[in-house]
Amino acid sequence: MKLPGAWKMLPVAACLALLGCLQARELGGHVSVILLGATGDLAKKYLWQALFQLYLDEAGNGHSFGFHGAALTPPQQGQKLMAKALESLSCPQDVAPRLCADLREQFLQLSQYRQLKTSEDYEALSRHIEAHVRQEGLREAGRIFYFSVPPFAYADIARHINSSCRPGPGAWLRVVLEKPFGHDHRSAQQLATELGSFFHEEEMFRVDHYLGKQAVAQILPFRDQNRQALGGLWNRHHVERVEIIMKETVDAEGRTSFYEEYGVIRDTLQNHLTEMLTLVAMELPGNISSSAAVLEHKLQAFRALRGLQRGSAVLGQYQAYRGQVRRELQKPGGFHSLTPTFAGVLVHVDNLRWEGVPFILTSGKALDERVGYVRVVFKNRAYCAQSEGRWAPAQSRCLPRQVVFYIGHGELGHPAILVSRNLFRPALPPQSWEEVEARPGLRLFGRPLSDYHAFRPVRERDAYSILLSHIFHCRKESFVTTENLLASWVFWTPLLDGVARDVPRVYPGGSENGHLLDFEFSGGQLAFTQPPPEQLVPGPGPPPRPSDFQALGAQYRESPLVSAWPEELIARLAGDIEAAALQAVRRAGQFHLALSGGSSPVALFRHLATGHFGFPWAHTHLWLVDERCVPLSDPDSNFQGLQAHLLRHIRVPYYNIHPMPVHLHQRLCAEEDQGAQAYARDIAALVANSSFDLVLLGMGVDGHTASLFPQSPAGLDGEQLVVLTRSPSRPHRRMSLSLPLINRAKRVAVLVMGRTKREIATLVSRVGHQPKKWPISGVLPRAGQLVWYMDYEALLG
Amino acid sequence: MKLPGAWKMLPVAACLALLGCLQARELGGHVSVILLGATGDLAKKYLWQALFQLYLDEAGNGHSFGFHGAALTPPQQGQKLMAKALESLSCPQDVAPRLCADLREQFLQLSQYRQLKTSEDYEALSRHIEAHVRQEGLREAGRIFYFSVPPFAYADIARHINSSCRPGPGAWLRVVLEKPFGHDHRSAQQLATELGSFFHEEEMFRVDHYLGKQAVAQILPFRDQNRQALGGLWNRHHVERVEIIMKETVDAEGRTSFYEEYGVIRDTLQNHLTEMLTLVAMELPGNISSSAAVLEHKLQAFRALRGLQRGSAVLGQYQAYRGQVRRELQKPGGFHSLTPTFAGVLVHVDNLRWEGVPFILTSGKALDERVGYVRVVFKNRAYCAQSEGRWAPAQSRCLPRQVVFYIGHGELGHPAILVSRNLFRPALPPQSWEEVEARPGLRLFGRPLSDYHAFRPVRERDAYSILLSHIFHCRKESFVTTENLLASWVFWTPLLDGVARDVPRVYPGGSENGHLLDFEFSGGQLAFTQPPPEQLVPGPGPPPRPSDFQALGAQYRESPLVSAWPEELIARLAGDIEAAALQAVRRAGQFHLALSGGSSPVALFRHLATGHFGFPWAHTHLWLVDERCVPLSDPDSNFQGLQAHLLRHIRVPYYNIHPMPVHLHQRLCAEEDQGAQAYARDIAALVANSSFDLVLLGMGVDGHTASLFPQSPAGLDGEQLVVLTRSPSRPHRRMSLSLPLINRAKRVAVLVMGRTKREIATLVSRVGHQPKKWPISGVLPRAGQLVWYMDYEALLG
Repeated sequence: MKLPGAWKMLPVAACLALLGCLQARELGGHVSVILLGATGDLAKKYLWQALFQLYLDEAGNGHSFGFHGAALTPPQQGQKLMAKALESLSCPQDVAPRLCADLREQFLQLSQYRQLKTSEDYEALSRHIEAHVRQEGLREAGRIFYFSVPPFAYADIARHINSSCRPGPGAWLRVVLEKPFGHDHRSAQQLATELGSFFHEEEMFRVDHYLGKQAVAQILPFRDQNRQALGGLWNRHHVERVEIIMKETVDAEGRTSFYEEYGVIRDTLQNHLTEMLTLVAMELPGNISSSAAVLEHKLQAFRALRGLQRGSAVLGQYQAYRGQVRRELQKPGGFHSLTPTFAGVLVHVDNLRWEGVPFILTSGKALDERVGYVRVVFKNRAYCAQSEGRWAPAQSRCLPRQVVFYIGHGELGHPAILVSRNLFRPALPPQSWEEVEARPGLRLFGRPLSDYHAFRPVRERDAYSILLSHIFHCRKESFVTTENLLASWVFWTPLLDGVARDVPRVYPGGSENGHLLDFEFSGGQLAFTQPPPEQLVPGPGPPPRPSDFQALGAQYRESPLVSAWPEELIARLAGDIEAAALQAVRRAGQFHLALSGGSSPVALFRHLATGHFGFPWAHTHLWLVDERCVPLSDPDSNFQGLQAHLLRHIRVPYYNIHPMPVHLHQRLCAEEDQGAQAYARDIAALVANSSFDLVLLGMGVDGHTASLFPQSPAGLDGEQLVVLTRSPSRPHRRMSLSLPLINRAKRVAVLVMGRTKREIATLVSRVGHQPKKWPISGVLPRAGQLVWYMDYEALLG
Repeated sequence: MKLPGAWKMLPVAACLALLGCLQARELGGHVSVILLGATGDLAKKYLWQALFQLYLDEAGNGHSFGFHGAALTPPQQGQKLMAKALESLSCPQDVAPRLCADLREQFLQLSQYRQLKTSEDYEALSRHIEAHVRQEGLREAGRIFYFSVPPFAYADIARHINSSCRPGPGAWLRVVLEKPFGHDHRSAQQLATELGSFFHEEEMFRVDHYLGKQAVAQILPFRDQNRQALGGLWNRHHVERVEIIMKETVDAEGRTSFYEEYGVIRDTLQNHLTEMLTLVAMELPGNISSSAAVLEHKLQAFRALRGLQRGSAVLGQYQAYRGQVRRELQKPGGFHSLTPTFAGVLVHVDNLRWEGVPFILTSGKALDERVGYVRVVFKNRAYCAQSEGRWAPAQSRCLPRQVVFYIGHGELGHPAILVSRNLFRPALPPQSWEEVEARPGLRLFGRPLSDYHAFRPVRERDAYSILLSHIFHCRKESFVTTENLLASWVFWTPLLDGVARDVPRVYPGGSENGHLLDFEFSGGQLAFTQPPPEQLVPGPGPPPRPSDFQALGAQYRESPLVSAWPEELIARLAGDIEAAALQAVRRAGQFHLALSGGSSPVALFRHLATGHFGFPWAHTHLWLVDERCVPLSDPDSNFQGLQAHLLRHIRVPYYNIHPMPVHLHQRLCAEEDQGAQAYARDIAALVANSSFDLVLLGMGVDGHTASLFPQSPAGLDGEQLVVLTRSPSRPHRRMSLSLPLINRAKRVAVLVMGRTKREIATLVSRVGHQPKKWPISGVLPRAGQLVWYMDYEALLG
């Protein structure tokens, strides 16, 4: 059952039904495990032990096993290395030493080394397995290939397996892959496509070993078994924040060749921390033992993540890193690495359950402690009527309330699940989780340990042994599917691109970091709390300051001109609009504002949405200056921009919102539907004198404004208030307020931003009234005021 | 300048410009202060001392004074009582004893007792003042009448002053009133109208002595002087909660005749706590020394308060209260008082600045400590990268951050303003506020005192002396205007009415209260954290439980019936709608839901808005089942209910919302505008087969459903999908989906709730298909499912 190269991925749910998983639950059969990279670090440290554990757990259940350690090394040498790796295998504490020795002996007998380099090697392996099965009179159940090799080797190995090592009909194939799974979305997609040409989706098990950590693996079962207590709590009304933290004390010394290419975000955030985030945030399926349902819900959680921007992260680099890179990678003395070794990222999940709840992801090297946890902090929704000294920790709802999945290390020193006693008593499977013994004096997350219901695993198990068991039992939900992997990269890649040239803050390392890496957030933006101590890489001199431009004339085309850096300009314009709104509402009870689409107003919309608490939205009518002839729900629609960046953040009554009727009778801007006339009638009916209180315009590089383009046959003069026009760029058909209508307004603001506007701004500053050639030059309110808002880039290039 | 009885109130801003205030700032002139109730408790305890302070402060500034203590007591006896009241006058510490004795002597000489009972008494007083002014060659500046008398005496005194005691032209009159200012909105309105017939608005100074407490009086100046630091913080993005607390250890013993009539809400919440709330919540005027601006902004804050409901408060009564009332008011042994002596109230300010921020108001007697404060707790918007032990309190943004206006008493023992050191260093006027000395070991609000910038008044001043100075200087912003008073009653009266028959929780008093009075909130509802310990007033037996009704047939009119108590019923219906939505979106990518107006669905809307995080709103289209022929923005419009209770809490794209076009071409439901046809066309265009996924209906007591009334000539059959109809009740004209259209739906849910529906529910259960007579009987989806949702009251009466 070889796969053709162009085999297309099926959705997860469909794949899972194909084969493999159901058969795994059948009793008996022979299972071959081929560990590729059998003599490498990971194999020595974790994988052989995990395979031994698998053998201990499953050999008694009717399966027979063959373990094949494989590498490129020739047989004799490889055999030796492997024998060394197998020396330290150990049994769990509850296995008697004598029995353990026997089991170990059995395992070693089943384990062979094998050089896998050429097609012939793979064919020989396959023949060997088949012969063994035949000889022993067994049925082959399946083969597990564990790729503990660098990703550049994946393709070759995968090709060999697919062409030479697939088991016969009725037996399954499972390949286990280790990260990195790409460097960004593109490379991950490439790698996935390549692997997808060799393996079915359900044959691939991408390991994120954090999913095997006991506290992490318990997140979903915990949510499931405590549905009743958590049902009403696990949402934005009750959760204040979620912290997903992985702090290390070690640094990257000795690993800079890897680290320099990846950095902390690719190393831990894109995978471990994101996986944990989805386990917390996803909707809980009715049945969490359904892999398909879990994976589908997880994918939904990925899709609900709000896009990251440059301001979503703070980055740091420990001081010694640069020197380590220079030494290990033989870089010249002047070399500066921009690779972050510390990152704090603010993530928002844009759905009704989590809207507004900050998810804080932090990871770094050379920090003051080694610890990892997922911490859900609940809001204080109580008032305690007695003075604080009289609060009983288990009863007072005013003391902090939290649920912590403690991965390990830190002051506690072992995995645990903590639930504040004033929250509820959690249900946990008693055979695998037990209460933590008292440790007076130990404080965690601001409270003594005794304030928590604290549970620890009865037996600590290594992540890899858990995951190997899940592979064996085909529990796909513990692995990263292609869809979820790509969704994660879709999420992280824009941030990685955005910060690629940012200079991380240098920190000394360890406890000396002090408050240097503390960060805080406001309106989706993250920033270090302390101002930067000094500039690491000196820039090309200080940027010009607004005051450098104070001498500029405050007029443009004989109208007032406001010029500033973008942020200040937007703040000024927003302030002026609010002032106009307050004045209009005071005078007339309402404010009629006509807004343009495009990118410049987006920043304005955001500013108005988040900073202007006194804006009289309830009395504001919103009109469109122009619209593209597309349905309102089309991403190209100007109205969409307004909806996404302004309307959903404020409260304008439905009936005060006036989109342009470009879509009537199920068709777009048909003359005979008279949409333009209808809009003009609405304006006439609601806006006194059809005179808007404020019209916000932009200016195109061709001198167009609204959707009035040079040489437009309509809208530049005449009686029509609203017109259908054509744009030189797509979508061509537009609806627009006409110049005569715009010029009736009480105020007109023209916002011009960015270097690309420099040329037209210079040109327009010199031309007279030539609306046919430059429609913007026809903007001149008859009785109102025109103000130009230009940033320095547009004004000065 | 006597006022006619029917004189109408002018708005504050206009009044303030009238007279009085400007003249007060002129130098010189004679001021007469008439203290009515000069020998009463308040006068003895505070007012005489405050008048003496006024004399000390102002006598040197060119004014002369006359102080007239007045009461009903005959002259000789009154004189004696007053002399006694004046014995204990004292000077501030910084006045030398010798000087103090002189000043005291002068003050006593200027102070006379006067019986004021009849018109003649008042006329004589006025003549006396005029004569005195003439004799001494002075100019009369104005007269202050301080009403330290019970409110029932107000009207008489006011009439006398207005008719006999107004000063001549050019001099001002100020009357000072003490609470209670009414018992509810109606009585407050009556009292205000009565007083308004005697005095101009700007002549009246209603005292809320909390506005004179130093920490309270500093709230606005503090916000003003720290505009820069607070500007970005004083809003919903940064404030977690605001606590406004007034706890007393004393109980009401000896005062139950007053207390039994008023209770804690009228006694402290309606006035003191509400005033403080508005000082925190109001928009800060540009110039806080403008009384008009301050009062106007305060009024806006009142108007932004979200209406209170029964569930907005928890009430308690200390155990001994009942006995005290029985004793003091000679009530029979079986008497139960429902008067609350403790209240916790959750207030929301419905504007963009404060949306979602809980304002917790708490006040009570017989609590564990005496303390009052306004505490603003900020959200933790930071992550601190070091382990907690290394956080420096002044730097770490992860430690609690708060601003506290500490009124007095409590562990601190004096007024103070506290600002967490990790927040900012506040600016306070150094001549009147100084830093609090260190007090190791003292913890306040969870942190040691040293974690705060803590300031106290250089000189502690009594509230009444501050307020008398403000009266003298005509600083109206420190007093309660008629508009603000009535706005406060408008806010509190519905709650007072709603809880009038509620049985308060009994608490033992003092520190024994334990956690008994702790309360918490969720979705606007408050509840005690601990379940009730026992029932104080035994009811008529336990209420029936849902399980009592399990045996009921699960059919109604041969369709499935869901019956439950209201809350459970709504939850069931909401769950069923969500399930239908998820199914439809999974199948077709969208969900078409048609909703009815009226009151029953309001609870459903709330449930959907707050509890259903997985609801696919982004893919849901909302249609109306029926609409009244009023503009969409009319409060009577069904769409308004949808907007207020559902739309503003969820995120349905604008273009998925389909109000009925009852208002076209600026007229309502005109046949020739073809609104019904247009709606039918929209439905046909967007809803496959014009078959809604779910239609929610109600049932009227006359058997109507949607806006299809008995004997309706349209909509009960035929081809028309949407029809204009007439209702027997106003507004008569309606638009409605027709029965044939409703019956095309995939599901129809009929929600019937409340005792009033009992009769029709019984009737309709028996009739056949008779839509002409009972339109509801015509609801029978051709291919879809009909489910009845009835609460037990509708079903069983």
